[in-house]
Amino acid sequence: MKKVVTFGEILLRLSPPGHDRISGSQSFDAIYGGSEGNVAVALQSFGLSASLVSKIPAHVIGDAAIQAFNAYGVDTSQIIRGGERLGTYFLENGYSIRSSKVVYDRKHSAISEAQIDEFDLDAVFDGAELFHVSGITLGISEQAFRLSQAFMEEAARRKIPVSFDFNYRAKLWSTNEAKEKFLQVLPYVDVAFAGFLDFTTFLGLDHTLVENVAALEDYQKIYRTINETFGFQYIVSSFRDVLSASKNDYQGLVYNGTSEEVSLSQKYSIDIIDRVGAGDAFTAGFLYSYLLNKDDAYKVEFATAAAAIKHTIFGDSLKVNVEEVENVFQSGAFHVQR
Amino acid sequence: MKKVVTFGEILLRLSPPGHDRISGSQSFDAIYGGSEGNVAVALQSFGLSASLVSKIPAHVIGDAAIQAFNAYGVDTSQIIRGGERLGTYFLENGYSIRSSKVVYDRKHSAISEAQIDEFDLDAVFDGAELFHVSGITLGISEQAFRLSQAFMEEAARRKIPVSFDFNYRAKLWSTNEAKEKFLQVLPYVDVAFAGFLDFTTFLGLDHTLVENVAALEDYQKIYRTINETFGFQYIVSSFRDVLSASKNDYQGLVYNGTSEEVSLSQKYSIDIIDRVGAGDAFTAGFLYSYLLNKDDAYKVEFATAAAAIKHTIFGDSLKVNVEEVENVFQSGAFHVQR
Amino acid sequence: MKKVVTFGEILLRLSPPGHDRISGSQSFDAIYGGSEGNVAVALQSFGLSASLVSKIPAHVIGDAAIQAFNAYGVDTSQIIRGGERLGTYFLENGYSIRSSKVVYDRKHSAISEAQIDEFDLDAVFDGAELFHVSGITLGISEQAFRLSQAFMEEAARRKIPVSFDFNYRAKLWSTNEAKEKFLQVLPYVDVAFAGFLDFTTFLGLDHTLVENVAALEDYQKIYRTINETFGFQYIVSSFRDVLSASKNDYQGLVYNGTSEEVSLSQKYSIDIIDRVGAGDAFTAGFLYSYLLNKDDAYKVEFATAAAAIKHTIFGDSLKVNVEEVENVFQSGAFHVQR
Amino acid sequence: MKKVVTFGEILLRLSPPGHDRISGSQSFDAIYGGSEGNVAVALQSFGLSASLVSKIPAHVIGDAAIQAFNAYGVDTSQIIRGGERLGTYFLENGYSIRSSKVVYDRKHSAISEAQIDEFDLDAVFDGAELFHVSGITLGISEQAFRLSQAFMEEAARRKIPVSFDFNYRAKLWSTNEAKEKFLQVLPYVDVAFAGFLDFTTFLGLDHTLVENVAALEDYQKIYRTINETFGFQYIVSSFRDVLSASKNDYQGLVYNGTSEEVSLSQKYSIDIIDRVGAGDAFTAGFLYSYLLNKDDAYKVEFATAAAAIKHTIFGDSLKVNVEEVENVFQSGAFHVQR
Amino acid sequence: MKKVVTFGEILLRLSPPGHDRISGSQSFDAIYGGSEGNVAVALQSFGLSASLVSKIPAHVIGDAAIQAFNAYGVDTSQIIRGGERLGTYFLENGYSIRSSKVVYDRKHSAISEAQIDEFDLDAVFDGAELFHVSGITLGISEQAFRLSQAFMEEAARRKIPVSFDFNYRAKLWSTNEAKEKFLQVLPYVDVAFAGFLDFTTFLGLDHTLVENVAALEDYQKIYRTINETFGFQYIVSSFRDVLSASKNDYQGLVYNGTSEEVSLSQKYSIDIIDRVGAGDAFTAGFLYSYLLNKDDAYKVEFATAAAAIKHTIFGDSLKVNVEEVENVFQSGAFHVQR
Amino acid sequence: MKKVVTFGEILLRLSPPGHDRISGSQSFDAIYGGSEGNVAVALQSFGLSASLVSKIPAHVIGDAAIQAFNAYGVDTSQIIRGGERLGTYFLENGYSIRSSKVVYDRKHSAISEAQIDEFDLDAVFDGAELFHVSGITLGISEQAFRLSQAFMEEAARRKIPVSFDFNYRAKLWSTNEAKEKFLQVLPYVDVAFAGFLDFTTFLGLDHTLVENVAALEDYQKIYRTINETFGFQYIVSSFRDVLSASKNDYQGLVYNGTSEEVSLSQKYSIDIIDRVGAGDAFTAGFLYSYLLNKDDAYKVEFATAAAAIKHTIFGDSLKVNVEEVENVFQSGAFHVQR
Repeated sequence: MKKVVTFGEILLRLSPPGHDRISGSQSFDAIYGGSEGNVAVALQSFGLSASLVSKIPAHVIGDAAIQAFNAYGVDTSQIIRGGERLGTYFLENGYSIRSSKVVYDRKHSAISEAQIDEFDLDAVFDGAELFHVSGITLGISEQAFRLSQAFMEEAARRKIPVSFDFNYRAKLWSTNEAKEKFLQVLPYVDVAFAGFLDFTTFLGLDHTLVENVAALEDYQKIYRTINETFGFQYIVSSFRDVLSASKNDYQGLVYNGTSEEVSLSQKYSIDIIDRVGAGDAFTAGFLYSYLLNKDDAYKVEFATAAAAIKHTIFGDSLKVNVEEVENVFQSGAFHVQR
Repeated sequence: MKKVVTFGEILLRLSPPGHDRISGSQSFDAIYGGSEGNVAVALQSFGLSASLVSKIPAHVIGDAAIQAFNAYGVDTSQIIRGGERLGTYFLENGYSIRSSKVVYDRKHSAISEAQIDEFDLDAVFDGAELFHVSGITLGISEQAFRLSQAFMEEAARRKIPVSFDFNYRAKLWSTNEAKEKFLQVLPYVDVAFAGFLDFTTFLGLDHTLVENVAALEDYQKIYRTINETFGFQYIVSSFRDVLSASKNDYQGLVYNGTSEEVSLSQKYSIDIIDRVGAGDAFTAGFLYSYLLNKDDAYKVEFATAAAAIKHTIFGDSLKVNVEEVENVFQSGAFHVQR
Repeated sequence: MKKVVTFGEILLRLSPPGHDRISGSQSFDAIYGGSEGNVAVALQSFGLSASLVSKIPAHVIGDAAIQAFNAYGVDTSQIIRGGERLGTYFLENGYSIRSSKVVYDRKHSAISEAQIDEFDLDAVFDGAELFHVSGITLGISEQAFRLSQAFMEEAARRKIPVSFDFNYRAKLWSTNEAKEKFLQVLPYVDVAFAGFLDFTTFLGLDHTLVENVAALEDYQKIYRTINETFGFQYIVSSFRDVLSASKNDYQGLVYNGTSEEVSLSQKYSIDIIDRVGAGDAFTAGFLYSYLLNKDDAYKVEFATAAAAIKHTIFGDSLKVNVEEVENVFQSGAFHVQR
Repeated sequence: MKKVVTFGEILLRLSPPGHDRISGSQSFDAIYGGSEGNVAVALQSFGLSASLVSKIPAHVIGDAAIQAFNAYGVDTSQIIRGGERLGTYFLENGYSIRSSKVVYDRKHSAISEAQIDEFDLDAVFDGAELFHVSGITLGISEQAFRLSQAFMEEAARRKIPVSFDFNYRAKLWSTNEAKEKFLQVLPYVDVAFAGFLDFTTFLGLDHTLVENVAALEDYQKIYRTINETFGFQYIVSSFRDVLSASKNDYQGLVYNGTSEEVSLSQKYSIDIIDRVGAGDAFTAGFLYSYLLNKDDAYKVEFATAAAAIKHTIFGDSLKVNVEEVENVFQSGAFHVQR
Repeated sequence: MKKVVTFGEILLRLSPPGHDRISGSQSFDAIYGGSEGNVAVALQSFGLSASLVSKIPAHVIGDAAIQAFNAYGVDTSQIIRGGERLGTYFLENGYSIRSSKVVYDRKHSAISEAQIDEFDLDAVFDGAELFHVSGITLGISEQAFRLSQAFMEEAARRKIPVSFDFNYRAKLWSTNEAKEKFLQVLPYVDVAFAGFLDFTTFLGLDHTLVENVAALEDYQKIYRTINETFGFQYIVSSFRDVLSASKNDYQGLVYNGTSEEVSLSQKYSIDIIDRVGAGDAFTAGFLYSYLLNKDDAYKVEFATAAAAIKHTIFGDSLKVNVEEVENVFQSGAFHVQR
Repeated sequence: MKKVVTFGEILLRLSPPGHDRISGSQSFDAIYGGSEGNVAVALQSFGLSASLVSKIPAHVIGDAAIQAFNAYGVDTSQIIRGGERLGTYFLENGYSIRSSKVVYDRKHSAISEAQIDEFDLDAVFDGAELFHVSGITLGISEQAFRLSQAFMEEAARRKIPVSFDFNYRAKLWSTNEAKEKFLQVLPYVDVAFAGFLDFTTFLGLDHTLVENVAALEDYQKIYRTINETFGFQYIVSSFRDVLSASKNDYQGLVYNGTSEEVSLSQKYSIDIIDRVGAGDAFTAGFLYSYLLNKDDAYKVEFATAAAAIKHTIFGDSLKVNVEEVENVFQSGAFHVQR
């Protein structure tokens, strides 16, 4: 079993039941998630081995968070216990013309104040064949950025491929702050998850290039332009068309830096139960097929189907096996299986 | 803060959870609502001041009803406590090709037997810049009609503009009964909320006029014809296209009696969580922009977006702020805000 | 009141709430259903009299199952108590691009080991004007097949028309096993519920005949071909177009073996809450109109509307009255009735 | 199977979940009960046959009420459909030092306006071996009193024993009103369920007699005194010691008018889940053993154990079989049965 | 209506349903409470007027908190909106031999960083007849301490009596830190809520004095000793005997600094649903009877009964009226009121 | 970390919510438990390492069962996937005078048909310092008995101490059947969990010896008598006094076969939330202190406190850490920790 190491924050998500409003709600559904943890859970569900490296407080909420990841087999042995609080956020799940809303309450979290010497790097990277981190983790705090950078550097030193998902969050930091940090770590990155908005905002792509993309050649041109500067092994993107808060179209694209070819997936029209973590499912879907050396067409279809199916599952993470993902993009039939 | 006074019945709504049937349901969700109270809650959420005038029993169910309006800041100090029972109704929330059903159990309610001298009119109208009542209140009982009429007359006497929503309910009274009463109060009305069906049923409009309305001129002709007789300051209508019990198209129209112009809103295609109170949200949306002297284009867009967003919120009343309503009609983007 | 006797298994269905996954679910909604029992409940709701003949254990789970059918007036007096267990299955209710899943746990059930001499045939058939069984019951076990066959034979002997729904379940038996059994009982059958797949899999119809059906003549040709061999009084089919796990198109067809004419219903586009039992509602809808000698156009519209409305109701069985079904196919209006 | 006919009102009980307060509760648990209906359900559970005679509206809430009684096998065929509303009440379930509270909303109910000629008396009394009614039904309205009286008279005329539970409710009528009516119907009564408070309030017993009852002789003296005037076949009483809202002591007594002996049950100390309907379970427990000609010691133990166990079950009615009741008073062991 | 001004933190309490553990819980019940806010809600429920002064973030969680206090009529107009986060804590509600557990997550809350010049002191104290604050608020942060001190000083300057509840929380600060701060504010205090542990820990009372208290004289001696130094108008104490996490004995005592007499309440044995806020209910009960000039015997009985009844109600605050409290200590009967 | 290997069946427990009855319940809470699995979870929570060896079907219900044990860190790598079904049982949780009821539906389960060669014995016993199995597993089927015996024999061969809990279940087999099997495996057993009833039923102890046990000497005599025959290293017993279904007294005893001394724990009076698994918590508590070489007084107190606290936690298994258990028997104070 291939092993992936992810590093990031575990967050407690609190959501009113169903599509209720935060105002007037007498209870919150509790989900322990977070971008890199979500990737880890999905990878485990696909049969790979995933370790989540993090720091969370040594109290019962922290215990509960660990149990949530244990349940799906994620290796939590490299999670440091300590610090003050578990990052939290409130999510109001929108519907139709009403948008979802997020209220962050994640400052001063344990991981935002963690330091590199708290981790046992040999244990962390033992057996790892890939290291993954997202831009969210870089944006948590200056200290978390330095920690992320140190992990990426260490991975590179150990010849472990590095995967990076831009995952820019406007409620966390400004684009200028993000850009400055992103550019510092991109040299370590082998596989980059990024979309057109990331290209123009952070990677200097000319806006005009992304305005009227239609044919596969248009895509190819954009990715080749980007990769002239950055030379990633893979650039992986998803395209989302937000018809309403509960109905999106979704499509994925894989750019192979070696062959310089793009592969575009089929497009899904999805009725949404919970779109949080769809990007992480996409990432995990790609990493799974990347580590198993599937061809690019499979990679993009598997990643996109994984992301698509995540939209229909409550909670942050995708807990479906490979067969169920493959059924989605291979058969497209949705009969009751009885 | 502009102050609006509304007068009407508070109802206890009992609904099986989600889209369950009444038959077989072991619990009912409880909502304290009612047309005018819903208007009051929405106005408070928009930052105006709203008072709800009513009469409800002096028992704990009555207390609970008052707390529900207090929570959103509605002034409940002019609600008389007394009488026998709180009007109740059962609502089964339909879905797709299955219609919603209502069973009324509202006879003999406290307000249906209230009398004008139970209210302190000076306190009721203190600071009021608008008085609002709906046709439902007129149809509750003969006594409730006389009470409504007295309030409207008193408002007029005090030079407070009167707003009236036809809101005809077939389970409450016949069209003939309603017509007779409506015509008695319309002379007091400045702002009328009414649609094509109200025009032909109650206001004598020729059916042929409303049959094939297409261009803005067609609308204009109809409203001008109506207003020749009634001379309202504003006539405000909403148009609903019922594609299924859970999917409707919705559009609003404002007719300015002074300029004799109509303003038509964008049309929303809505997946519905709970459509009860959408008309009240529409009313509140209009009254908010009317009292703040917004232009007619804003009025109709704000009112329609308020109504549209109400469809996606469980419960009778709209509890969203102005910014959230404006986002709906101004941006039309439904991304997660994180 | 016309009386229908049905024979089949009562199953306990366990489903995670809403569209939740089985994995991680801390509770299961419990529904006592089963194909023939669902037919019985719907017939009772339509005002007919229905008896459910079965065998279930003499413990409290069995009691609860009986109460579920009693509630809707089904005659449960011919249900034998005894045996080891109540058949159970787990259902995960899919959504959008995620399919529903069924895990059967129904082996060794009481009915799978029941024998004909446990039943009082005179009591079972007393007053019956129709006997109904489905292919599921034939597939439960060899013993259940023999029991079904014996009931059908007995019904025929008593000149009671026999209704049979193919209802093939791949998780229960192979098509070869099913075919062998089906052919043994078809001689008793007067009314057959079967679709194109049943025709080609079990009844020997040439595949090419069903591939490009467009006009009514194409349908007619197929049904006439089938009926040359089998001579059913009626063949009744439904056509389902699975757009997603939560959105289906649905249409019904009635072939009259006497007139040799087909009647096709309107087509419904349905947002689904729970599609389990839709076929049973269809069956009940047809049997109701068949027993009341409605014309074929009414038969197919009533059956199809009954099936369509079932999709929007949680639980296995349709508990709506005739008026509500008629409203669906006659008015097509889905306004709140208030 | 012995058949009992009961006559009374079906009420919809609405309770906040668990021990929550009405104020602030967002849902109500719904129970369809009522004193005589509760007796009927318990009798069915004991294996007797029970018919509930009543009148309820012909709407879906009425349907749901009927299904609730159908589920447990109660014969609902003599329930008239019609009238305006189903009587309703709100119950807040107290705990420890906090009392339970009831808010009645039962005026103008269908049964309060029913008339004797709406019922088919031959059908009502067909096969009946006992007729039961409670004082609540007499207190609903003047019309309901006359109806009750007519039923009791008719039962007497048909030589069917009449059972009557005083069941005085202070929120329904004054003791004076009740006394006047009770005295009119007592001549028809064979079995009377009444306690010391009923004796002194309605039957003229001297207060001093009930103040310091200790020995069996004291009880005997009281009952003999009462029965000198009224000559009942049986007087049956329960004694409740309210230690707190959730902890009561409970004991039963049977006075045999023929032998002039009293039988006292063991005393139960009960932690309470829901005490509504405990008296009805007591009544049913007695009537069961009365109709099966059990000896008086069994009668009082069975009745009291039935009442005791009802306190531990949510909902108005007792749905346990004879074996389970006997276990309580015979073994007194409460081990898990596994 | 007498008006009380309270100052303190609003906290979001998150508890697993019922007595569930935090570990494994998939949802949390959400309660907006906090010591001073709880006092305010109870005072409103007793018919007084109460204002809660605080600072909470200007986001939707803050809105929800305000609505929770609005619902019960608390004046929230002097709550400043701003700052970073709402203090939060997790509560696991123990049972029997299992203790309740609290995990605080309240650092960096809006109020912990608030400053005196953000408040409009004239508006805050307008019409106030009493100012109340608890020791919790002093312990939140240095800034919150200074703010509390400034409010107390200002109240004293305006001749508004000051009420202070020691409310020491070991998870917030050490006894040494608390002692230093308490001693700085006690000079402003007129009414002190404190128990024996507070006397010995913070007020220098000799341990031996509190060890074997039995007779009323023993109590009197202790309170007189304390008051020689501090000269409070009233010292009010509650005594809790923790038999288990769900069963406590509870008793109250009022010491009148003027008469130098103690009044002891009856002792309650309570089965507990939720003991959070019982001390605040006690405080509110005393303040209500203090402001209404009840005699000391009433004061201590009302306060103690208020606290006792709070234990039986889910949530932080007591929402019962005066009559319900009086029933508890005057009648002691817990019958269903029907 | 000491490692314990347990072998047994994983069962799906289905219980109506709270204390509801199975009859009428519309959902079941789902718990994945089983005696040996419960022991494993508790040992993990105490900080030891535990492996659960079993066989469960390769479907999604099986996955969910595994995740439930993974969550708490139990090693599930030696669970074989395959076979037909997961054993299931229904539990109705009694209250006060109403007993709990169990309906087994566990025949034909995967483990009942498993064979020794499906397991990799080296992997199973790798690092094990104790092997534990209960009498339930022996009673599942003849095959399960042989499997258990083989595991015990293998453990003995590898010099791994064997722990055995008699755990006789009357719904599984007769005492005669059990006795025959128990006697075959007892030679392998080092630590035996058994009570007086086991001694007299299975181990031949004279009834008169256990009838009036009072002093410690009486206990000692009994255990010495038993151990003359069996020579266990430890015999561990718990004594339960069933006051009602929701209130039990509970006490533990440890007999040290070497010192021939008995140690008796304090006695707990417990209000019960869920007593299933209390015996397993007791077992785990003893094994924890046994493996850590605590003295016998600690052993018996820890085991008994662990069992006691389990009664207050919903679900089969004890998920509390050592500190929380120690708090129960060392402090006995149940204050809120805040």
